[in-house]
Amino acid sequence: DARRQINQLLMYPDSSAGSLMTIEFMEVASDWRVDRAISEIRLQAEDKEAISTMFVTDESRHLQGIITLRDLLIAKDSDIISDIFEAESISVNTHTNQEVVAEIFKKYDLSDMPVVDNENRLVGLITIDDVVDVMEEEATEDIYKMAAMAPIEGEYMDTSIFTLARKRIVWLIVVMISANFSGMIINKYNSVLSANLLLTTFIPMLMGTSGNAGAQASVSIIRGIVLGEIEFKDTFFVMWKEFRVSLLVGSGLSIVDFACVWAITGDYLLASVVGITIFCAVVAAKLVGCTLPIIATKLKLDPALMASPMITTLVDAVSLLVFFNVSILLLPGI
Amino acid sequence: DARRQINQLLMYPDSSAGSLMTIEFMEVASDWRVDRAISEIRLQAEDKEAISTMFVTDESRHLQGIITLRDLLIAKDSDIISDIFEAESISVNTHTNQEVVAEIFKKYDLSDMPVVDNENRLVGLITIDDVVDVMEEEATEDIYKMAAMAPIEGEYMDTSIFTLARKRIVWLIVVMISANFSGMIINKYNSVLSANLLLTTFIPMLMGTSGNAGAQASVSIIRGIVLGEIEFKDTFFVMWKEFRVSLLVGSGLSIVDFACVWAITGDYLLASVVGITIFCAVVAAKLVGCTLPIIATKLKLDPALMASPMITTLVDAVSLLVFFNVSILLLPGI
Repeated sequence: DARRQINQLLMYPDSSAGSLMTIEFMEVASDWRVDRAISEIRLQAEDKEAISTMFVTDESRHLQGIITLRDLLIAKDSDIISDIFEAESISVNTHTNQEVVAEIFKKYDLSDMPVVDNENRLVGLITIDDVVDVMEEEATEDIYKMAAMAPIEGEYMDTSIFTLARKRIVWLIVVMISANFSGMIINKYNSVLSANLLLTTFIPMLMGTSGNAGAQASVSIIRGIVLGEIEFKDTFFVMWKEFRVSLLVGSGLSIVDFACVWAITGDYLLASVVGITIFCAVVAAKLVGCTLPIIATKLKLDPALMASPMITTLVDAVSLLVFFNVSILLLPGI
Repeated sequence: DARRQINQLLMYPDSSAGSLMTIEFMEVASDWRVDRAISEIRLQAEDKEAISTMFVTDESRHLQGIITLRDLLIAKDSDIISDIFEAESISVNTHTNQEVVAEIFKKYDLSDMPVVDNENRLVGLITIDDVVDVMEEEATEDIYKMAAMAPIEGEYMDTSIFTLARKRIVWLIVVMISANFSGMIINKYNSVLSANLLLTTFIPMLMGTSGNAGAQASVSIIRGIVLGEIEFKDTFFVMWKEFRVSLLVGSGLSIVDFACVWAITGDYLLASVVGITIFCAVVAAKLVGCTLPIIATKLKLDPALMASPMITTLVDAVSLLVFFNVSILLLPGI
């Protein structure tokens, strides 16, 4: 049994349906009576990993259909398999990625699914128990990608520090270098800052708020795409929705910020600059945040790569531009 | 059937084992022969939602044990249930939270689990099919919390813009107000900035890199806690691991940054300030990022709330303090 399992792992690519399936499943012939099928199950069950679904194949091992143990038990002893089996059955190829397998299980609410080879011959069965582990793995991978890390294989506690460092440093370098774009904007407008150095104080708040507002939108959309709730055709619906959400959130934050800055500095013009900037930054952040993951999916890229770090960099630049230009417009002496 | 389901939903709290379970399960008596049990299943299966596990109870409906359909089929017709059933069985209470239910399924690799009431009487059965949906829901909730949003119920596409705005604005206000702490630090050191305005250019890069480095650590640890891989007793192991990872990642980023700044500005002192700061900021970020989620768990708080936004705010402040103090130490004329 162990040797068979090792052979199976060697034969099929990692994370494929072939590496996930069991080859210890039940088969019944289409011309059997129900009582014969039940007797066969009782004889063979001890050696089979999965008995809740049985397969009906023809002589060349092409899948003809399936019958569940439940249907078999409900049927009369004298019924013939060919009269009661389901001829239609969803199946996957041995090379199908496990993520796709999990999606099919969820979409069609399956508990078992047959696996066929390239010649469409039955080779194995995937049960929902195996899919549960895959779902956890896939969720972990998405969470890692959203936090700007390449996913690790296996558990955190067992992963070496060199692997962890390698999985993390790549995105950090990308973020670090692209953040210089925001730095260049600050540099370009440093006459504004030198005229009123107090403006520098608002940069962390502005960048933090818009970055988080954008991440909220992108993460909502990425999760919706992964769960199959959002598709490319929904782009305009999603943008329109996020636009209205951003008007609400942006107004709320803008009022709070205006009030705080006015209360602390007593300068209502400065308070207006901060309030207007935060409103524009939140609207821009939400629109960028919701659009990029959908575009990524259309381009066959992983939407999870469009999460916080990418969005943040873009949104930081936008909010700084708004900040400096509103300052120039409204503040005296700049 | 629909009425029974509505009654069940009214009776048990949302997201509890009681709202998740089916009450259409099979029972067998301990003194039955196997052939009688199989006949009973064949009679009743059509009306039962779950038939792969059967329960054995005493007269007062206390759970005595379980027997799987597989074991029943493998057994001889003349065997008696009491001789072949499993007396030990993991069960949950109707009020157990669905997240805990999912954890138990994963931990013990179950496919079915009995649900008992406060008097320990059998009332229902949870099957792995239902747990799959719970796992997806819980992963979505964690992902939302990590991105500074209160989780929504139901799908994104069906959620109103007012609900979305409400779920998002609370954390944004918290982040916005706490980011003023970083603003205050900038304000305190504005003599440093006015002496060398070029330093302002590095603020976005510094904040972006350290924030992301901290988020990477916190998200890794949060996911490890959720998956049951990391516990409170692992605190020092995790800190030691993250410390060494941060030395590797910090050195790498520091060298890249030193080289970039030196190449662009030609000022090796400025390049040193940026390089040293990024190294210290990454080490601090990783340590804060890995420690807070573990402490939160110990305090019975949700570790996911300790993700990026909280970490970022704290880490921004630390990296700015390092930045200004290293600048004062190394740069001439400040």
